[in-house]
Amino acid sequence: MSAGSQSSVFLSPSQFLAHWQGHRRVTRRVIEAFPEAEVFGYRVEPMRPFGEIALELLAMAAPTVRGVATGDWEAYASPEASTREELLRLWDEATNEIEELWPQIPAGRFQERMTAFGQYEDVGRNLFLYVIDNEIHHRGQGYVYLRALGVEPPAFWERD
Amino acid sequence: MSAGSQSSVFLSPSQFLAHWQGHRRVTRRVIEAFPEAEVFGYRVEPMRPFGEIALELLAMAAPTVRGVATGDWEAYASPEASTREELLRLWDEATNEIEELWPQIPAGRFQERMTAFGQYEDVGRNLFLYVIDNEIHHRGQGYVYLRALGVEPPAFWERD
Repeated sequence: MSAGSQSSVFLSPSQFLAHWQGHRRVTRRVIEAFPEAEVFGYRVEPMRPFGEIALELLAMAAPTVRGVATGDWEAYASPEASTREELLRLWDEATNEIEELWPQIPAGRFQERMTAFGQYEDVGRNLFLYVIDNEIHHRGQGYVYLRALGVEPPAFWERD
Repeated sequence: MSAGSQSSVFLSPSQFLAHWQGHRRVTRRVIEAFPEAEVFGYRVEPMRPFGEIALELLAMAAPTVRGVATGDWEAYASPEASTREELLRLWDEATNEIEELWPQIPAGRFQERMTAFGQYEDVGRNLFLYVIDNEIHHRGQGYVYLRALGVEPPAFWERD
């Protein structure tokens, strides 16, 4: 093989966005799948309820896009919600904000080093990979909660 | 922004490989963190023990690289192990096989449509994204098992 085969594209920015929003649709369905009383009321000891996990995911997602796009890394937003409906509303707002801001990310930012939220130094692509991986990781924990509650979770492979 | 900003590279093939092997090091540490009796003996009902999950991950990882690299999609390998040490040995063999085969993947295969294992039709990049996402998803479940067993899991963000 020529060395050139490894300088090709694995994933373009718009392909990453589509992949991420597909995962975010799955996470939205996981939030929806929790019975209202359990979204902030149930947990597998000693872990957090899934509602608190969802708030962490919201604190990272759109703010990371905003930071990479604009260089404006405000302090971690602390979104607040105490019901499933409030979480879903925040989720949809974040979906729209990500969709709007993503095309504004300058070419090259994905390979450029920066400091996110005043403390995490890495290249842009790794900041986003951390956000999506953290979402998949914690959502997998949500699947355990749902199974333990006797609720069938949404299909992992269904992203539409 | 110009349209060109979205045709740049989010992730190159070698960047994806490095990212994946970093995750695989975390998963290896999760396998190691289970007490020997619990790797195939413990589960959160109604889910599988983590040892069985790890065997699923092994059945997908190196065989997908081999398939995309060579077009040879043999039937799902069914790796067998019943102890933590056997799992770790299979894990290390897969790590080496992935490392060897990855540079042989022809340029363009990541954006090319193909049928994996005779049944999953998608472009190369999505087949690999499925493999890594499935690993992160199920490993997150392993973290719940470890926490429930009173074992501190390895740091999610430590990839070396």
